[in-house]
Amino acid sequence: MAPTRVGVIGSGQVGRALAAGFAARGHEVTIGTREPAENDELQAWAAQHENVAVGTFAAAAEAGELVALATRGTAVEQAIQTAGPQYLAGKLVIDATNPLDMSGPSPALAIGHTDSGGETVQRALPDARVVKAFNTVNAGLMFDPQLPDGPHPMFIAGDDAAAKATVAELLADFGWEAFDVGGIERSRELESLVILWVAIGARRGAWDHAFTLVTPAGD
Amino acid sequence: MAPTRVGVIGSGQVGRALAAGFAARGHEVTIGTREPAENDELQAWAAQHENVAVGTFAAAAEAGELVALATRGTAVEQAIQTAGPQYLAGKLVIDATNPLDMSGPSPALAIGHTDSGGETVQRALPDARVVKAFNTVNAGLMFDPQLPDGPHPMFIAGDDAAAKATVAELLADFGWEAFDVGGIERSRELESLVILWVAIGARRGAWDHAFTLVTPAGD
Repeated sequence: MAPTRVGVIGSGQVGRALAAGFAARGHEVTIGTREPAENDELQAWAAQHENVAVGTFAAAAEAGELVALATRGTAVEQAIQTAGPQYLAGKLVIDATNPLDMSGPSPALAIGHTDSGGETVQRALPDARVVKAFNTVNAGLMFDPQLPDGPHPMFIAGDDAAAKATVAELLADFGWEAFDVGGIERSRELESLVILWVAIGARRGAWDHAFTLVTPAGD
Repeated sequence: MAPTRVGVIGSGQVGRALAAGFAARGHEVTIGTREPAENDELQAWAAQHENVAVGTFAAAAEAGELVALATRGTAVEQAIQTAGPQYLAGKLVIDATNPLDMSGPSPALAIGHTDSGGETVQRALPDARVVKAFNTVNAGLMFDPQLPDGPHPMFIAGDDAAAKATVAELLADFGWEAFDVGGIERSRELESLVILWVAIGARRGAWDHAFTLVTPAGD
């Protein structure tokens, strides 16, 4: 993907993994956090990365030609309002979040079956071109994953074909092969997959697994 | 798994694949259909397989020490009632079904998020030990799958550890490695996975794919 300006809304593990990945591929990144001036730890992290500036959610939304959402999934609508939906109109928005309800003994989906986080984001940003991506792998695998026999498929969903084509270019740069599973409503299954991913991690006692496909022909 | 008597309720592609697989591993199989005397085509199919008899749903349920459910998912509760729940009490019941609503342009789940077909089956058979298995692969891969770098994980779910251990033995005999993802409520995600499987098949134009796991260490 040609160098561009990227905003990342959310500065946890996922936000930092994406920001670092974009920056490593030559994009100019603004990583957004609620209180940038008070977040010394994030400022220190950003200072160790070329091409990464720290700003508010609004600064990240405004600066990015492409914006990635990487907050907690149940906080994403509020984060969009804080950022300012007007800054995201017309833009490619990558939704990497999962609507996880963490109140129980293990993570559950706050919504599902007939709705999803991806659809919620698209409704909150009707003029943005939302693509669900990166939500089914852990932060450590998002950029340049060291997986055998790759590149492996990264499942993506969204209503805008051109936006998905751009995300496919980006994923290739990140070391993944985009696999388009359909419209944004397929976020239902991509988010459900995360609950399975968690169950598998609990069984493995390790969290570096990703789903991939196998066929008799190995294609 | 030591040779036993197996009942298969449902005689479509999935029922036949499972019946043929069990029979090939030396189990004595009764495959159940609604009207066995009138189903000449199934009788002819069974005649080509050693160890496979055709019977009613009730005959299959009564004959099997282990019973596999392989009807349409939205018909499984009715099939259980037709078979006679009393014949399934205390038994290991493998639920290979998916609660697919086929009324729309593409398959959707009739239930999900907070409930599942697997849980429905367990509620309908409170005295049975229900294990969800085989629902995430197509019939052609259920037995002796010719997949590179196998055996690959078959995700299973259920509330009875001993029942899952038996299914793990069975899966090993069938060419899979059981991967226990938790209680029967994890059927929610295993059934959701099928919608993703369908979306992937629609994109591939082929239906012989299965999900597997990849890790950096290749373990």
